[in-house]
Amino acid sequence: MPDTTANASPIAIAVIGASGYTGANLLRLLLMHRRARIACVTSRQHAGRTIGEVFPRYRGMPGSEVAFIEPEIDIVVASGATTAFLALPHGVASEFAVPLLERGLKVIDLSADFRIADPVVYEEFYEAAHPAPELLKTAVYGLPEVHGDAIRSASLVASPGCYPTSIILPLIPMLQEGVIDPASIGVFSMSGVSGAGRKESIHLLFAECNESVRAYSVPRHRHLSEIEQELTLAAGSKVVITFTPHLIPVTAGICTTTYAQLSAGVDVSVVDAALERAYGRACFVRLLGRDSCPDTKHVVGTNFIDIGWSYDQRTGRLILMSAEDNLGKGAASQAIQSFNLMHGFAEDAGLLLV
Amino acid sequence: MPDTTANASPIAIAVIGASGYTGANLLRLLLMHRRARIACVTSRQHAGRTIGEVFPRYRGMPGSEVAFIEPEIDIVVASGATTAFLALPHGVASEFAVPLLERGLKVIDLSADFRIADPVVYEEFYEAAHPAPELLKTAVYGLPEVHGDAIRSASLVASPGCYPTSIILPLIPMLQEGVIDPASIGVFSMSGVSGAGRKESIHLLFAECNESVRAYSVPRHRHLSEIEQELTLAAGSKVVITFTPHLIPVTAGICTTTYAQLSAGVDVSVVDAALERAYGRACFVRLLGRDSCPDTKHVVGTNFIDIGWSYDQRTGRLILMSAEDNLGKGAASQAIQSFNLMHGFAEDAGLLLV
Amino acid sequence: MPDTTANASPIAIAVIGASGYTGANLLRLLLMHRRARIACVTSRQHAGRTIGEVFPRYRGMPGSEVAFIEPEIDIVVASGATTAFLALPHGVASEFAVPLLERGLKVIDLSADFRIADPVVYEEFYEAAHPAPELLKTAVYGLPEVHGDAIRSASLVASPGCYPTSIILPLIPMLQEGVIDPASIGVFSMSGVSGAGRKESIHLLFAECNESVRAYSVPRHRHLSEIEQELTLAAGSKVVITFTPHLIPVTAGICTTTYAQLSAGVDVSVVDAALERAYGRACFVRLLGRDSCPDTKHVVGTNFIDIGWSYDQRTGRLILMSAEDNLGKGAASQAIQSFNLMHGFAEDAGLLLV
Amino acid sequence: MPDTTANASPIAIAVIGASGYTGANLLRLLLMHRRARIACVTSRQHAGRTIGEVFPRYRGMPGSEVAFIEPEIDIVVASGATTAFLALPHGVASEFAVPLLERGLKVIDLSADFRIADPVVYEEFYEAAHPAPELLKTAVYGLPEVHGDAIRSASLVASPGCYPTSIILPLIPMLQEGVIDPASIGVFSMSGVSGAGRKESIHLLFAECNESVRAYSVPRHRHLSEIEQELTLAAGSKVVITFTPHLIPVTAGICTTTYAQLSAGVDVSVVDAALERAYGRACFVRLLGRDSCPDTKHVVGTNFIDIGWSYDQRTGRLILMSAEDNLGKGAASQAIQSFNLMHGFAEDAGLLLV
Repeated sequence: MPDTTANASPIAIAVIGASGYTGANLLRLLLMHRRARIACVTSRQHAGRTIGEVFPRYRGMPGSEVAFIEPEIDIVVASGATTAFLALPHGVASEFAVPLLERGLKVIDLSADFRIADPVVYEEFYEAAHPAPELLKTAVYGLPEVHGDAIRSASLVASPGCYPTSIILPLIPMLQEGVIDPASIGVFSMSGVSGAGRKESIHLLFAECNESVRAYSVPRHRHLSEIEQELTLAAGSKVVITFTPHLIPVTAGICTTTYAQLSAGVDVSVVDAALERAYGRACFVRLLGRDSCPDTKHVVGTNFIDIGWSYDQRTGRLILMSAEDNLGKGAASQAIQSFNLMHGFAEDAGLLLV
Repeated sequence: MPDTTANASPIAIAVIGASGYTGANLLRLLLMHRRARIACVTSRQHAGRTIGEVFPRYRGMPGSEVAFIEPEIDIVVASGATTAFLALPHGVASEFAVPLLERGLKVIDLSADFRIADPVVYEEFYEAAHPAPELLKTAVYGLPEVHGDAIRSASLVASPGCYPTSIILPLIPMLQEGVIDPASIGVFSMSGVSGAGRKESIHLLFAECNESVRAYSVPRHRHLSEIEQELTLAAGSKVVITFTPHLIPVTAGICTTTYAQLSAGVDVSVVDAALERAYGRACFVRLLGRDSCPDTKHVVGTNFIDIGWSYDQRTGRLILMSAEDNLGKGAASQAIQSFNLMHGFAEDAGLLLV
Repeated sequence: MPDTTANASPIAIAVIGASGYTGANLLRLLLMHRRARIACVTSRQHAGRTIGEVFPRYRGMPGSEVAFIEPEIDIVVASGATTAFLALPHGVASEFAVPLLERGLKVIDLSADFRIADPVVYEEFYEAAHPAPELLKTAVYGLPEVHGDAIRSASLVASPGCYPTSIILPLIPMLQEGVIDPASIGVFSMSGVSGAGRKESIHLLFAECNESVRAYSVPRHRHLSEIEQELTLAAGSKVVITFTPHLIPVTAGICTTTYAQLSAGVDVSVVDAALERAYGRACFVRLLGRDSCPDTKHVVGTNFIDIGWSYDQRTGRLILMSAEDNLGKGAASQAIQSFNLMHGFAEDAGLLLV
Repeated sequence: MPDTTANASPIAIAVIGASGYTGANLLRLLLMHRRARIACVTSRQHAGRTIGEVFPRYRGMPGSEVAFIEPEIDIVVASGATTAFLALPHGVASEFAVPLLERGLKVIDLSADFRIADPVVYEEFYEAAHPAPELLKTAVYGLPEVHGDAIRSASLVASPGCYPTSIILPLIPMLQEGVIDPASIGVFSMSGVSGAGRKESIHLLFAECNESVRAYSVPRHRHLSEIEQELTLAAGSKVVITFTPHLIPVTAGICTTTYAQLSAGVDVSVVDAALERAYGRACFVRLLGRDSCPDTKHVVGTNFIDIGWSYDQRTGRLILMSAEDNLGKGAASQAIQSFNLMHGFAEDAGLLLV
């Protein structure tokens, strides 16, 4: 699709809460995006310092001279920003989403606040009443390959979590086309340490995480709420799964392996066909085909998700495998993919990076 | 159990094929073992050089002055060794096991050659006729927690593979006591790179494996043969499972997570009881209890295997988790545990290392 | 400087020998460069496969569908390429440079073949007669911050080595302005493992390099030849230094720390001034100032080199510190910086990546 | 030397402040030491929990059932401990050393409190008045290869810092025998992240340290105080050096490279001879010889320090290289080496671990 807006001036962007790894990656991508201009970036901790001072990696890039400010709505609005990215903890994000939407900004929220359509489920998994349930109807789950049309016209996008993106994308076509038994899904994921955030914690120290692998958050990780919501939508009936995340010593990257029983009477050849129908034209889903195993090193730093699969004929199970960057397709670059759709830009604008 | 042999002279040991990671770790443990003396160590590649020259880490240790020799049976026998460890590729190991057993040595084989009781299964998974099927009847699968009595009186021990040890030990009590549905087992493992061996391969380079995670050997890894053999023994009926190994950027360590459906009518409280009955007195199995996740960093370099579990009541699945050192409990130190049993030593002799 | 050529069609590029890490990074950068088009890429090993097949990371990028061909001059010329990058071993590079220059292509060589102006020095360090001494007069050492004008009009650029770039850039202003005693220079560098190349070697395995640090190539690394050549040029008299490289467990990045005695009577305030004069307008040299320590994580993947310094008044020594990507500013991206100059593009075209 | 005390009962040990990496490693070694019994271990943070609960790696080891207590002198003394190891921050250690010595315990302090004989130098580098200057006369610097005799009869041993051990040992014989010019010494070290301690700090997170290398503490690291003290003792005249530490992404290990000008008229052959004279009989110093580069992977987890060297005849500089475990020979295991000497045990008792 030709990009007819190539000569327009860039969109003025506000990034709210850019001190963590997701926020930092968002800034990185925006600094390289020709259709975006960072009009304002907030952080209580860093207020007064420039992007280049806070993130030495970005010094020398045009735009890195913008200084962090306090996260105050009036100042954000005064910056001229027309789209805001929220890189804030859940619960806090909605405090900004509500007034920014009221002031007419488009909002792309990277927290969990608007991902769960049902506030009861939110409360079950996040152990607090939903902070802004009135917005849940307008929020769109920001998975462009699935909800692209809704994203294009959305004012509030809830960008998906890192694990969910890696789990949902391979499974959706299988559920939509009845390839697998929805009751048989077991998911194992491995994530780099940046997924745990940039916070002072003994458990996240180099000397603790290096040469270490372990499961965590068993048996009920919060991301199950959005995963099952989307799988249920695809299957057309309630889907409940088992999911175990593991922490591995890489900085970034998620690798997910999923088992599910092939539906009775289904031939395994349908797997490639279903994936092709779903993602054959998706610019950031790379289908590796049967018996090919995705490797996180090929996707970290990019917006790609790689999907492979295998079939265990001894047990009749389908093995789905995916790899993505937890900070990229699982967070910041996927949010920019939504941004591109919301503004009518080419879907891959600013994202053809490897 | 008091060790009544504490003042006996040490057993003279031959290590055949000690140039890889398993062999190196075997030498390490034998150099620290008060009941063992390395009488002979072979390697075509290193013949003429001492252990300390080939493995600089071991210089200065008493015993490290022993020189490698060519792998010739007569010279091995002439060294006075009465027990031989074989750290050789499958197919090659049996070429040494046969004559060494004939010469009266006890043999502990770390390859796959004698792990599979049924030569047809061996041929199916290893794609060659079994090289010495006449020995399969006398060989004992060297998992001390399961086959301890047989190991004590064995002349030929087939020490288990790294993945199998981590998978079998948590599952056996569940199958023996009918806690889980044997048809529902899905296993997911992550291994350090040393598991792939010390060989010249682009795929094993630091710059390829670092910051990388991926599945491999889908859908049918060779270790399935011994895993299913032992699970079938425990269940009393044929067990077939799905198993996916993953390569992660650590030098050593295996972390395994297993899903299986709890049997109908079984209360989850039985899990701890079954584990306790099986391993309550096992000196190297550490039971962490419910919702505790084993971490490879706590077992690498040791002979311990840590086992934790969780229960996903939303799907009715049991989640078993284990961690071990692929070169330790998954290879060299487990072989020494068998050695201790074969010689009437304390089971933990030379293995109380952390 | 305004880029007056922004609407011109891209330059057709040949990449000769793109199977190693430097070649792969060159392809990566060229795939993202708006003024370059990969017309041809060669590799005996990969001939017939596309860039995307050989390097799965690059699949999905426009240009990744180009297939590798055999390295034959006629085919390279027939591809229409007007500039060739040579990512070949030393000794081999000149076999391609000579005919390609004859056929009228501009050549940017990333090997050592044309870096040493004096063939006697080449022979001393590379232990072979120089393969094409007649070209040494026309070759330009491709350090844009130092030889920018010569690069602009060059037909043959010898792109610098990874260690040399990190060592030379901080030292040149100090020597040019007489800040330090040239006889007192001691250099200590640490490099990621990709610097050793993508070759089958036990020493480069993950399980060998991980959790390991060591010096190597003591006392006379080949890069000393080009380092001392450039330092001698800057000082105006023969400079000889001590240099020790170390291998550390990162995939990419070089960190260099240099000691040198401050010249008698020189005030330390001159250091910042000299650096500023030399690099104040250089788009890829980031001056961190006194007591700031560059970190490789801020430069890997970019074309930046970060320079900091400190002064040890207790011994009168200046401490210069730098960080760069050994595959970036130390190899591929610096070569593209030269390419930009040779074609009159903005010096940072295609290189504003973080 | 035969160990005539082999059948004596083990020494009762108190470990004060065992929550950090050094304390943890001390516990590890004591759990494996046949002449030591942990009578008491203190930590405000962990009081009430057993060693095995706090450090899951040590569960199952005899002795790991000992519970942490509050650090109160009376309780420590009541435990029957006759030797105390202090693994506390500087400044705090002396608060325990003074009363424990008064109560008749031998004290091995792993902090900096008693390493610097001159309280003025202590104050200069640690920016506080020395907390117990009256003890400085009796304290012995715990480098067994240098001060072995004094350690044997000491009641208070100040165990050396990690960097100092790696720097001092190679240099002392060179200075004692006049091999190098003391004014020309420049030292570069690289340390694993555990050297920075087990504390909540963003800078020590996995995602910050991984794929990162940088110098720090330029130009005056605190360890210079003890390094120069010992070098001055060896040289017989005041020695001042330049020293730059670097943080590299390994959990443990220090690699040090030192440059120094060979003294006029000295032949380089004297280097091996001097090292041999100094350490030929030292059980934990392994001399690798000329042009051999020590690798931290061969010493981490052990008490060995490996020393190699090279000679740069182009500049006349000697290059000394060493590798040790910062938590081992640079901390805990070296402290136990002193413990062995203080109690007349074999110097390598409990330390022959690889």
